[in-house]
Amino acid sequence: MATGSEIERLIQLLARLPGLGPRSARRAALVLLKKRDVLLEPLAQAMQDAAAAIRPCETCGNLDTVTPCSICTDGRRDPHLLCVVEDVADLWALERAGVFRGRYHVLGGALSALDGVTPERLNVAALLERVKADIEEVILAMNATVEGQTTAHYLMDLLEGEGLKVTRLAHGVPVGGELDYLDEGTLSAAFKARRGL
Amino acid sequence: MATGSEIERLIQLLARLPGLGPRSARRAALVLLKKRDVLLEPLAQAMQDAAAAIRPCETCGNLDTVTPCSICTDGRRDPHLLCVVEDVADLWALERAGVFRGRYHVLGGALSALDGVTPERLNVAALLERVKADIEEVILAMNATVEGQTTAHYLMDLLEGEGLKVTRLAHGVPVGGELDYLDEGTLSAAFKARRGL
Repeated sequence: MATGSEIERLIQLLARLPGLGPRSARRAALVLLKKRDVLLEPLAQAMQDAAAAIRPCETCGNLDTVTPCSICTDGRRDPHLLCVVEDVADLWALERAGVFRGRYHVLGGALSALDGVTPERLNVAALLERVKADIEEVILAMNATVEGQTTAHYLMDLLEGEGLKVTRLAHGVPVGGELDYLDEGTLSAAFKARRGL
Repeated sequence: MATGSEIERLIQLLARLPGLGPRSARRAALVLLKKRDVLLEPLAQAMQDAAAAIRPCETCGNLDTVTPCSICTDGRRDPHLLCVVEDVADLWALERAGVFRGRYHVLGGALSALDGVTPERLNVAALLERVKADIEEVILAMNATVEGQTTAHYLMDLLEGEGLKVTRLAHGVPVGGELDYLDEGTLSAAFKARRGL
């Protein structure tokens, strides 16, 4: 392509973002170059600001401008409840749902023999330290995948001797879900966990 | 969301890229923050470099680090052939195909009554200037959309009196295309333009 190497490099880096392939990265680069003042320059600045300001929380692993993060230091949140998630994205999802008013612990992934993710590569040691300090309930909010559930079982075994209440998220029919479109695993889980009205 | 406003701003700006919605922008922001050294900082730098270096070519409207652009100044390209395209993306697509060795003229869009795009808002006046200078053939490579074809007809009328050969791209069955999956318009165009073997 007879274009400057600056454009090529921009496209190559954009193509490494999730959700953008080589073709959509080209489209994105063109839009950026056309909207130089309102998009390209502000986005470059926002990235530099984020790179300078955002860091992982030393306590829970959340990403924030301060460490410990604003969730860990929020006095209105219940310090006795700890929700363990695989990833910061899961923490954000739970915060958007506004369903949990305790604190979080981000593992940084899930156990996976295939990908070589062992317990040592996850933020497990810090979790065992944290639960010693006045935690009453640990909620294991892993993904409902093989890796997530393996991780949940592993953590349940580890936490068994600590005298804690350990819970996990309910599995069942998603709200708004139609039975016809659900897989057998979900239907079976929903059936087994049926409740009296 | 209990996260720094730097993350929020990054997500908002990323969500304005084509191909990324609010959800995928969040995923992209997380990936960027996790890959700070190998992705976030290089991408911010690449954007600043592009913002500083890339500008539209004064002659043809292509985007490049120099103006006139490297295509306009390439002595190996035929200066008597001019290919008119709607957008820089179309120019890039033709260059990737490596099918054309003349020069380009980027209109900056297509005529559209609905979007209020009149001839004055396109790079038409400069095109009329350029064709006076030793051009033998003008290839109208508009998109095969209503707007693109309207623009092609408008330009054909304008260029009629200039004593030029004016051509347009062929319409027909795309290479690799199956008739069963093509629309009636394409099949009809391919039939009408059938050629002897």
